[in-house]
Amino acid sequence: MLDVVDAKTTGELMAEIGRRARAAGRILATAPAERKNAALREMAAAVRAAVPDILAGNRQDIDTMTANGQAASFLDRGTLNAERIEAIARALEDIVALEDPVGSVMAAWDRPNGLRIERVRTPLGVIGVIYESRPNVTADAGALCLKAGNAVILRGGSDTIRSNRAIHAALQKGLAAAGLPEDAIQMVPVTDRAAVGDMLRGLDGNLDVIVPRGGRSLVERVQSEARVPVFAHLEGLVHIFVDKAADLQQSVDIVVNSKLRRTGICGALETLLVHEDVAHSHLPVIVRALQDQGCEIRGDARVRDICENIVPASEDDWSTEYLDRILAVKVVRDLDAAMDHIARYGSSHTDCILTGDQAAADRFQREVDSAIVLHNASTQFADGGEFGMGAEIGIATGRMHARGPVGVEQLTSFKYKVHGTGQTRP
Amino acid sequence: MLDVVDAKTTGELMAEIGRRARAAGRILATAPAERKNAALREMAAAVRAAVPDILAGNRQDIDTMTANGQAASFLDRGTLNAERIEAIARALEDIVALEDPVGSVMAAWDRPNGLRIERVRTPLGVIGVIYESRPNVTADAGALCLKAGNAVILRGGSDTIRSNRAIHAALQKGLAAAGLPEDAIQMVPVTDRAAVGDMLRGLDGNLDVIVPRGGRSLVERVQSEARVPVFAHLEGLVHIFVDKAADLQQSVDIVVNSKLRRTGICGALETLLVHEDVAHSHLPVIVRALQDQGCEIRGDARVRDICENIVPASEDDWSTEYLDRILAVKVVRDLDAAMDHIARYGSSHTDCILTGDQAAADRFQREVDSAIVLHNASTQFADGGEFGMGAEIGIATGRMHARGPVGVEQLTSFKYKVHGTGQTRP
Repeated sequence: MLDVVDAKTTGELMAEIGRRARAAGRILATAPAERKNAALREMAAAVRAAVPDILAGNRQDIDTMTANGQAASFLDRGTLNAERIEAIARALEDIVALEDPVGSVMAAWDRPNGLRIERVRTPLGVIGVIYESRPNVTADAGALCLKAGNAVILRGGSDTIRSNRAIHAALQKGLAAAGLPEDAIQMVPVTDRAAVGDMLRGLDGNLDVIVPRGGRSLVERVQSEARVPVFAHLEGLVHIFVDKAADLQQSVDIVVNSKLRRTGICGALETLLVHEDVAHSHLPVIVRALQDQGCEIRGDARVRDICENIVPASEDDWSTEYLDRILAVKVVRDLDAAMDHIARYGSSHTDCILTGDQAAADRFQREVDSAIVLHNASTQFADGGEFGMGAEIGIATGRMHARGPVGVEQLTSFKYKVHGTGQTRP
Repeated sequence: MLDVVDAKTTGELMAEIGRRARAAGRILATAPAERKNAALREMAAAVRAAVPDILAGNRQDIDTMTANGQAASFLDRGTLNAERIEAIARALEDIVALEDPVGSVMAAWDRPNGLRIERVRTPLGVIGVIYESRPNVTADAGALCLKAGNAVILRGGSDTIRSNRAIHAALQKGLAAAGLPEDAIQMVPVTDRAAVGDMLRGLDGNLDVIVPRGGRSLVERVQSEARVPVFAHLEGLVHIFVDKAADLQQSVDIVVNSKLRRTGICGALETLLVHEDVAHSHLPVIVRALQDQGCEIRGDARVRDICENIVPASEDDWSTEYLDRILAVKVVRDLDAAMDHIARYGSSHTDCILTGDQAAADRFQREVDSAIVLHNASTQFADGGEFGMGAEIGIATGRMHARGPVGVEQLTSFKYKVHGTGQTRP
């Protein structure tokens, strides 16, 4: 922990954090898997031992948030209890079980001259995580970056700063117990926005990528101001297209699950597009199933002709991520019209086609430019864990480096190892 | 070709080029391999048919460059003749033979719930190439981007603008003949620096990555000002470490080849590090072989003790990319000292260990943080063609997305296709 905060400006402090992270990253880059796993186990033990400290810090945080009149949903996300802290410790242990990506051979081939070439995973370097009011991110992000051999700089929101500090202290105890540098997981000890600005400018080349975890305004600021690469998605404006060859019961099940299983996640359905040939047969059944579970339907004129209790959809509804029990619904002429709508309003996150027609599915999955394109499955599967990738630090919609769920493999780079026996180039 | 140049400001012009590129990119993204290959063949034919136009344009360029007093090496790089134009046409045909990366399955796996997940290559989008005085880059870069389904915006140097325009006109004829949009390969028709500035700012989100091809000052400007990702290397400060277990004759052959085969390429050797245990046995032989071929040796005190006709090395020599018949040489204590030297002075491009000790080779290849790390082979193999990757657009030293040779595969992104049979998430 830096204990010299008061003596420095924020800029000096952040520059030093960057230098320390880079130095720790060099050590982590060649740390064996067993040592990183030992640290993760020690971190879990230290979190369990720190339950009283973490709860005490969290109580102060919650009191301050309550006094500041924060919304109930915000308070809930920030609140810890013994059960949630145990879940944090278990999540650390789960990361032990993931395969260490560093050093794994992604591809290998031989050249006619006898050279053997291997493409081998390496750490990315130093990762900055900027997050809001979810103390568990402190441990989750720290552990995932560590597993991939990266140093991490955590900058949590001021609302839960005491909870984050208590968790972070436990993580550093775990690192030290395993003989790894404490600077592998640093937390920015100040909460002014200048520190975020320094991170967005890349800490003099000592920060390689930034992952924002939080609301739209945070992601927007990071994406527009960052001078280093960003792994993020601004929103998940998720579509399902019910094709003319879609099975009715399957459509009801998948649409209801995609919209209502959890409405607040980025893979939740936001706009339903229905082929006009099945609008009369499928739409009323789907809509009723949703309405029965308290979902508001906002439809275009054709939806309102076919179904009852439909709120008229405005132009804004096609580009609104509700994250709530509301669904925008539109009847479309055909597959092309559905794909045009998605190209215009989508967020390149997750989209889905329901159809028994393999050719239609193939076209949709090839032509829709989203990180995740599903066929006959719930959009709520848009998740690193559900993909079998283990824990994820977020979902990215950019096209550079990481796209879709960002797990431990996506937090790596690579190098080429060339094995020769004396070859020179003619 | 845009014929409205005079009516617009550079900013308006560049914004329009960006929008056109994005629209063309959408079409290219789903263009079948056969159509892209047909375009490449038509482009080669059109280049051959345009030899008189290209030569006429090139003659004007060379006259202007000569009148401006450009250096001979610069003139040579810019000069075209029938043979060089034929090489350009053949290079276009060579790209036909490369496998189309778009749609290829990078990984596929099944989940316990029956979901099948595929990670599939997609184009990156729109690529900007900023280059200097090598007219062949017009065709090479255009063709490579096209093969990977990307639209490209070419901004060549003013010195060879007429040569570039003549080649570019042939490329667009080839695109049109194959039924692909001419905007797939656009050339910036103005030569003011404001156009480059617009590209560096990303053309309102219509430019996804920039590849600079040219001298250090160009790459430096692009790397420091670009708001979009850059695939580049600033320099190739390439090291060879002759370990104590290095074979003498192999060391001589590989060092001489690495330094002198071609001194002007980024994989050429610049600094030689020799283990002190073999300094007396190996160094004089290696140095004499280099000196016999006219290579100047700049050595530290220990090198000067052991060898004759050594220029004293200054601190600057350890960080100088000569691209010439000059080599910096230093005696080091051991493998760790060699790796420390490389970490301090290297450029993360290409480094090499010569040794018969597999454990030493393993450590070097694991711990040296460079895009390409060789064992017992010439550093001049640092090249996409030599790697078997086909044509390359350059070599990247960053850790994001592309690293090492940037070939057609590195110019792609990916998406996840999820194939279900009705699965909903519990």
